[in-house]
Amino acid sequence: MRAAVMREKRIVVDEVPDPQPGPGQVLVRTLACGICGSDLHALHHADAMAEVAEECGLPRTMDPSRDVVMGHEFCAEILDFGPNTLRNLAVGDRVCSMPLVFHSGGVGAVGYSNDFPGGYGERMVLSEPMLLRVPDDLPTEAASLTEPLAVGVHAVAKGALRAGEAPLVVGCGPVGLAVVAALAMQGVEPIVAADYSPRRRALAEGLGAHVVVDPAAEASFDRFRAAAGAKSAVVFECVGVPGLLHTLMRDAPPQSRLVVAGACMEDDRIKPLIGIQKELQIQFVLGYTPQEFAAALEALAEGRVDGASLITGRVDLAGVAGAFEDLGRPEAHAKILVEPWRS
Amino acid sequence: MRAAVMREKRIVVDEVPDPQPGPGQVLVRTLACGICGSDLHALHHADAMAEVAEECGLPRTMDPSRDVVMGHEFCAEILDFGPNTLRNLAVGDRVCSMPLVFHSGGVGAVGYSNDFPGGYGERMVLSEPMLLRVPDDLPTEAASLTEPLAVGVHAVAKGALRAGEAPLVVGCGPVGLAVVAALAMQGVEPIVAADYSPRRRALAEGLGAHVVVDPAAEASFDRFRAAAGAKSAVVFECVGVPGLLHTLMRDAPPQSRLVVAGACMEDDRIKPLIGIQKELQIQFVLGYTPQEFAAALEALAEGRVDGASLITGRVDLAGVAGAFEDLGRPEAHAKILVEPWRS
Repeated sequence: MRAAVMREKRIVVDEVPDPQPGPGQVLVRTLACGICGSDLHALHHADAMAEVAEECGLPRTMDPSRDVVMGHEFCAEILDFGPNTLRNLAVGDRVCSMPLVFHSGGVGAVGYSNDFPGGYGERMVLSEPMLLRVPDDLPTEAASLTEPLAVGVHAVAKGALRAGEAPLVVGCGPVGLAVVAALAMQGVEPIVAADYSPRRRALAEGLGAHVVVDPAAEASFDRFRAAAGAKSAVVFECVGVPGLLHTLMRDAPPQSRLVVAGACMEDDRIKPLIGIQKELQIQFVLGYTPQEFAAALEALAEGRVDGASLITGRVDLAGVAGAFEDLGRPEAHAKILVEPWRS
Repeated sequence: MRAAVMREKRIVVDEVPDPQPGPGQVLVRTLACGICGSDLHALHHADAMAEVAEECGLPRTMDPSRDVVMGHEFCAEILDFGPNTLRNLAVGDRVCSMPLVFHSGGVGAVGYSNDFPGGYGERMVLSEPMLLRVPDDLPTEAASLTEPLAVGVHAVAKGALRAGEAPLVVGCGPVGLAVVAALAMQGVEPIVAADYSPRRRALAEGLGAHVVVDPAAEASFDRFRAAAGAKSAVVFECVGVPGLLHTLMRDAPPQSRLVVAGACMEDDRIKPLIGIQKELQIQFVLGYTPQEFAAALEALAEGRVDGASLITGRVDLAGVAGAFEDLGRPEAHAKILVEPWRS
């Protein structure tokens, strides 16, 4: 099949082996797959990610020196069933799935694996028990936002806002926007969101932010205090660049909690004494639970989250490399969908 | 009065002005005052502490270029009452107090202030509403451990262990030992504690640690897993040196929570990607609430914590400078009490 392949830190279109569904697995055709910031990270920092996994004794999901077909934010259509499948769904059904596939050797990460190509390829193999049927009236493009929205749902769940707390979302890229949407799903008020980009601030407002801040014009915490009064801050760090954690620790009021959803790939420097003097809490977050993933799809299906507003571009496989470039410019794009079936 | 004074990064014995109790204040005579690791930090890093306070917009408690009489872990005896006091206690009563004093300008930090000398001086001024009477049958030396034990009680309260979690206490200096004691007060099992010093490991066992580890001989987390099985780790970092936070993040199992009670005075380097991949939580802690302070005194009074075991030395004012030196050697000492009345 054709795919946009990560090879030697570049994205190239090439033919790769057709995936074959094993026991309990299903062959699907990719309808749409969002490009995730983590994929941009992986393209440039796959070695660092592998090193961290090794340093911590965590399982290594892929060997970046070999081909990887990325893409883990997908909506797909069932093409065929492997052996030992229940077949409660039908060929032609549209599905979403957490990007995990069970196989005889364990669990593979769809899109971060040498063996399980993701949605930047024409076809994928998924695990039948992980499939969620996409309701008929939910457009494919919105369904493909299930995964990134689930990231926001999870971050908000881990943030676990209590009475007397209010959120400040720092960074309104796709992760920050998903956090805003997940906070709005919970009816949290006020939601304060900060980003340098006017377009992203407008998207945040569209998804439910009550107050948006341009940090270039005004200190985010000043605006937070004006909006949230005496409430304590739960700060969602959705940027992931070195130095930001220190800045937030420095500027956050005492007793604040920081939820770190932005993936900073480099080492970072903090002042623990600031954390101590203010009794700050830092909660790092990753991924989501199956329940949170299903809740995200449901919220999109019920129209509680306007996913379509996030989609700022569509490309075919040949356009993936350029889309990776474009996504580095925050004013230009939020979410770009890859549609591998387009020629 | 005579006092051991912090002056130009040294401890010198000198005469300082007699403290005078203002409205709502009480004059007390210091009976015993523990030397805290924070005082050792302050002697060498007072500038860094002041800088952090300034950087964060927090109130600065003292000007290290002027004289400071430190000492905030004290048991004292009432000598006299200032104006506008209720006098529910009597002259001669022994008292403990949180090291905070209310005055016309706000709140002063007893022992970290140019205006409110702490327990390394013969006399102090305290706020009457903050005084807790020491029960008659509680020895003065044990009562002076109220403050450091309260630090442990608070760290454990902030750690808020849930079902399915167990503690690993890293470092068995006075803070780590207080955490062990506070965990034992709650009936937590198992309590695993790690320190390179055999003497400190023995003290930890005496205070309620079920398992002690020498990190030079065995990986602390291996021992933790052997003792705690599948329980998640709540790691109490009670050392406070650069690099330890990274090491703990690297070695902790996924979903661990880290409670940072050790005051690392320098900048520190972490790998956020490790935190994200394991969804770690870091909770910095400082101080205690009035309730926790009172609970610590009560636990000592009821004999639920054997405070006396911690006291490894006693000095007069002339001995304070040497005691600061001695406390740098973990095998030699846990807690040294200053008794300013000794000549």
